[in-house]
Amino acid sequence: MEFRVKDMDISTGGPFIAIISENDAESMDLYVGDRISIRCKKRKTIAIIDIAASDTSVPQGNIGLFEEVLSKLRIREGGRVSVSIAEKPKSIIYIKKKLNGLKLTGSEINQIIDDIASNRLDDIELAYFVSACHTHVMDLDETVALTKAMINTGDILKIKGHPIIDKHCIGGVAGNRTTPIVVSILAAAGYIIPKTSSRSITSPAGTADTMEVLAGITFPLSRIKRIVRKTNACLVWGGAINLAPADDKIIRVEHPLSIDTRSQLIASILAKKASVSATHVLVDIPMGKDTKVESVKVARNLKHYFTLIGKKIGIKIRVVFTDGSQPIGNGLGPVLEARDILLTLKNHKKAPHDLRNKSLRLSGLIFEMVGRTKKGQGMRLAREILESGRAYRKFIEIIKAQNGKEVSPDRIRLGRFARHVRSGRSGRIKHISNKTISRIARIAGAPHDKEAGVYLYRHRGDSVKKGERLYTIYCDNKQRLTYAARFIREDNGFVVG
Amino acid sequence: MEFRVKDMDISTGGPFIAIISENDAESMDLYVGDRISIRCKKRKTIAIIDIAASDTSVPQGNIGLFEEVLSKLRIREGGRVSVSIAEKPKSIIYIKKKLNGLKLTGSEINQIIDDIASNRLDDIELAYFVSACHTHVMDLDETVALTKAMINTGDILKIKGHPIIDKHCIGGVAGNRTTPIVVSILAAAGYIIPKTSSRSITSPAGTADTMEVLAGITFPLSRIKRIVRKTNACLVWGGAINLAPADDKIIRVEHPLSIDTRSQLIASILAKKASVSATHVLVDIPMGKDTKVESVKVARNLKHYFTLIGKKIGIKIRVVFTDGSQPIGNGLGPVLEARDILLTLKNHKKAPHDLRNKSLRLSGLIFEMVGRTKKGQGMRLAREILESGRAYRKFIEIIKAQNGKEVSPDRIRLGRFARHVRSGRSGRIKHISNKTISRIARIAGAPHDKEAGVYLYRHRGDSVKKGERLYTIYCDNKQRLTYAARFIREDNGFVVG
Repeated sequence: MEFRVKDMDISTGGPFIAIISENDAESMDLYVGDRISIRCKKRKTIAIIDIAASDTSVPQGNIGLFEEVLSKLRIREGGRVSVSIAEKPKSIIYIKKKLNGLKLTGSEINQIIDDIASNRLDDIELAYFVSACHTHVMDLDETVALTKAMINTGDILKIKGHPIIDKHCIGGVAGNRTTPIVVSILAAAGYIIPKTSSRSITSPAGTADTMEVLAGITFPLSRIKRIVRKTNACLVWGGAINLAPADDKIIRVEHPLSIDTRSQLIASILAKKASVSATHVLVDIPMGKDTKVESVKVARNLKHYFTLIGKKIGIKIRVVFTDGSQPIGNGLGPVLEARDILLTLKNHKKAPHDLRNKSLRLSGLIFEMVGRTKKGQGMRLAREILESGRAYRKFIEIIKAQNGKEVSPDRIRLGRFARHVRSGRSGRIKHISNKTISRIARIAGAPHDKEAGVYLYRHRGDSVKKGERLYTIYCDNKQRLTYAARFIREDNGFVVG
Repeated sequence: MEFRVKDMDISTGGPFIAIISENDAESMDLYVGDRISIRCKKRKTIAIIDIAASDTSVPQGNIGLFEEVLSKLRIREGGRVSVSIAEKPKSIIYIKKKLNGLKLTGSEINQIIDDIASNRLDDIELAYFVSACHTHVMDLDETVALTKAMINTGDILKIKGHPIIDKHCIGGVAGNRTTPIVVSILAAAGYIIPKTSSRSITSPAGTADTMEVLAGITFPLSRIKRIVRKTNACLVWGGAINLAPADDKIIRVEHPLSIDTRSQLIASILAKKASVSATHVLVDIPMGKDTKVESVKVARNLKHYFTLIGKKIGIKIRVVFTDGSQPIGNGLGPVLEARDILLTLKNHKKAPHDLRNKSLRLSGLIFEMVGRTKKGQGMRLAREILESGRAYRKFIEIIKAQNGKEVSPDRIRLGRFARHVRSGRSGRIKHISNKTISRIARIAGAPHDKEAGVYLYRHRGDSVKKGERLYTIYCDNKQRLTYAARFIREDNGFVVG
């Protein structure tokens, strides 16, 4: 059947949706959730049917398309498409198989991941897949197949050379912006480290948000390749390129129940690393209250599987457990974190010790891993490179290759409005909650508002007197400051005892 | 925050959706899938956030509401609502608990079903619940709690008297419209049988669709009560009243993967029966190729649980296994099925034998179950009542109480266009596919187009000569007839050998 296109101007961020009138749905015997194939000239896609409540939004003969469908078909309001009933994707039977506890073959996993990457599954079907893998945890073979399938459904950043280094932190700690420092130290030492990072989902800033303060982060693959060839490194946003795209779609569905499946976690991380040609990867697992991995047993199990699956796909993995019980660095929020990074790379006396130390430790472990130094000697080399100024110069080189320019840390503009949060009592700081401090920084506007965030004056173990500052909230919007103030009245994130 | 309402004119049939602009989402730190509380005067509801792709559809300061939300808040385009961030529903942690294989308590199941009935869970969360119950099958306690929770979240048709009878067929057989016949026989014998039925989902007609040919089927609870008081019975559409509403929402999510969970199946059926005050229920489980229950083992297991859970909630259950391997009756589609029912009730020689026999058998079993006759004698009583014309008179009484009028079966109008489908060879009919014949009737327009459908001249075991009619397709739309003809070129649903 032929339809006229109506632009619904809605985006789902996931499945492809098409809306038709009730009459047209009846004529075609289509129901909510059924699949149709939409064709426009040589382009074709599958979409999932929704039915318009009345004829006002989608009149008979029209088909309302969501943004994802329009852009896939490269069509606009008023265009003509032909529509036919589509079969359910093959992977649905494989998902049901896994849900019933049976082991999947490599080609079945490939089909599922291909259907996910191509938006052929809807949220419900995806949730069943996640749930199946949560209940019947994938074994080694399946996880390897999942990792390979994720790599194969995306683009690859092909880079020559050996070793090619990458690092990954599984997250959950506010601040903790070690990546730009580690990348600068490693690249300064002559190693290739093509780093792609994500934007924040629930934290005050991701590495991509922070780097965006200082440089461009959105480049096509070909340009990223040139940046790496020139500087040995890059610090770009992974979301702009199509590396292992099934991953983000799965994570979106895990979110509502905060489901973390081991196989999915490992496959998604290693697939992204393999997609940038990495040969050596350091995985940072922060541990402690409120982090993603609270028990030593789970951490060890993860380490075991990371190493094993890395071996199967040809990547050498080193896993390190770090302290994730409080924020790392002083600044939280893109601009404040960018400033901490510059202070650290410039060996400034105001550089946060914890951020500096953790960055040196991680860099040192990588030096040991690739055989540049003996065991126990890596951190010293990292410190030498940092203190010599070579890491800073390398950072500026990367920034410039990414259309940025050198900027002095004290010339970085912070939010116009500030509010100091003071301790209600004297004593020692017993706990700083990553979650609460992140929430406050986000209420202040981070990461969308780059100048917004929280600047910490104290860390755990420090003593504080009643009335002394714990932190300052920065904000560009007075109303947000009021919201944040209201929030901290209940919980300011610090336990002083 | 205050928003102006925009009517999006879209219906999801399930979760409550609200769309806001990207800017507003940023200001409120809201993401796709987050929950908001929307308030308009004294009405309040929870909705799930989607984000507009651009400002054209939902400008800043506006909130686009789907039909379900508009009707819940009784608000229209241009109205004002206030919006705040809402907590995730409590049941999410219970769903995760079940997903992890732990047994749920009664109050946890109550909370989940209450959240489902009130549309507080989105599709993804619901899919996790279904999946959890599929993998970790609910035990007896949980299923009883689920059944009770379903009853409690809906309305109750309170009817005095004892026994109060109901029947249920778990479906999968085309035609098979025994309900109006059984109800008429039982009510004519003086029993109370307040029957609510569903519309078709995948078959050519549900009992509600068929009854709609002859009478009104949509009544409020109070009116249904009056109909039952007057006639001992009713034959109404259950979808118009709010009996165990969580059920339909769960079924919607089971559909994509054709998941059938035992606990959900039993709870949903028994909850609807308990909601009409039933004390004695006959459950018909058709068996055979292509039906819902293919193995004797599964059928026996279902029978066991039906009986046990019935006992726990105070309903006496009798389960009967019937032959579901081919369509029952000659007509498929609302008008054609209504005609079969009238012919049967009028003891007409053209009445389909299989439909008549099955109806008598089911009625007889109920007579035995309630102690009206001895074992083995029920069917004779049912036949007497049918042949005396009392069942027909009772049926007309019910029809009239439901705003219908008496109509002669040969004055029922069929579809204007007809196409005869003939056997390609001589031989005995070995198989008639429920699925294929249903599909053909639906392509012809059933159940939306009441006159459309298929009329069968032969059943399994009959012999047929090449060129003789197998069935006729009726249709009100020539194009649909062409579609149907194209479909049967590949498979006409009959195996003659």
